[in-house]
Amino acid sequence: MSTAERLIESTRELLWERGYTGTSPRAIQQRAGAGQGSMYHHFSGKPELALAAMRRSAEQLRADAEAWLGGPGGAAERITGYLLSEREVLRGCPVGRMAQDPEVVGDPGMSETVDGAFRWLRGRLEEVLEEGRRGGEFPAGLDASGTAAVIAAVLQGGYVLARAAGSAEPFERAVGGVLDLLGIPSAAVAA
Amino acid sequence: MSTAERLIESTRELLWERGYTGTSPRAIQQRAGAGQGSMYHHFSGKPELALAAMRRSAEQLRADAEAWLGGPGGAAERITGYLLSEREVLRGCPVGRMAQDPEVVGDPGMSETVDGAFRWLRGRLEEVLEEGRRGGEFPAGLDASGTAAVIAAVLQGGYVLARAAGSAEPFERAVGGVLDLLGIPSAAVAA
Repeated sequence: MSTAERLIESTRELLWERGYTGTSPRAIQQRAGAGQGSMYHHFSGKPELALAAMRRSAEQLRADAEAWLGGPGGAAERITGYLLSEREVLRGCPVGRMAQDPEVVGDPGMSETVDGAFRWLRGRLEEVLEEGRRGGEFPAGLDASGTAAVIAAVLQGGYVLARAAGSAEPFERAVGGVLDLLGIPSAAVAA
Repeated sequence: MSTAERLIESTRELLWERGYTGTSPRAIQQRAGAGQGSMYHHFSGKPELALAAMRRSAEQLRADAEAWLGGPGGAAERITGYLLSEREVLRGCPVGRMAQDPEVVGDPGMSETVDGAFRWLRGRLEEVLEEGRRGGEFPAGLDASGTAAVIAAVLQGGYVLARAAGSAEPFERAVGGVLDLLGIPSAAVAA
């Protein structure tokens, strides 16, 4: 792995664990095993490096979701697969975590990266929900846009509640609950 | 307001804005207009002060929810009232925000305070949902426990998405969507 690559990956991990404010340039250099000169050779500073790391986390969120939402099967099956896909729930969401930090929210490039990932996710969920609604998998009156927002919020809120509890239980209960409200049989949920 | 009171309130605001790691004892003293000696006269340090501030935020969360959930009207009406009650959405949730911070999650007293508020909220929502289910306001097959987890997660995730977007829209859309999934007429939501 190149030094620039190690710096980005180390920043990604630190942002996930400690947030933007809690991540110092020195901590990044230590984790990446890179000197200060090397870091500033590759990046203008922590903001540029953090933006690269956030872009990577946002791409990963999209790739993880698309693997299920764009996969084979009906709409309900793909949404179920995505909601029940394996996650490190107690680490929280590397993208959602960034939204707490005033320095991130106040930076146009960083906040656009974080919000862009969520806008994409909501749009993609809406497409699949709408496909399922038209195909008769969901009630004809389903509000695909509102339900997509519910699903995105349940995932982000599930992470928050799980971290508070020190247990994946609230996340899993909320995900099971939203599938139940969508009328997806709980046998599929338990599987 | 007494000095101790000013210190707690200042800490509460700073934790809400900047998180635990981002809040220094010095920033607390400055906002409270209190000297270092005064702060350490009243509190053993930042952890004790932060715990008092978090307890206050947790009490506020409970009081705000109970004002609606324990108020007059049917179950659907009370849950709708709570979900649509006025919130400073873009500030995020002062309790949920704490769950991101590894120092908070790693401290037994603080994490119990944060998690206790959410456990209480989920239990209270479950009671009201169950009351509505028994009274025929919700489908007989409603999973009150799962739905309570969905509602708590939608609120927390709604804050995360709204902060990322710099707009209350994702919060409002998710809240409207969950009321829709519960079969609560959107006329009531729009009101």
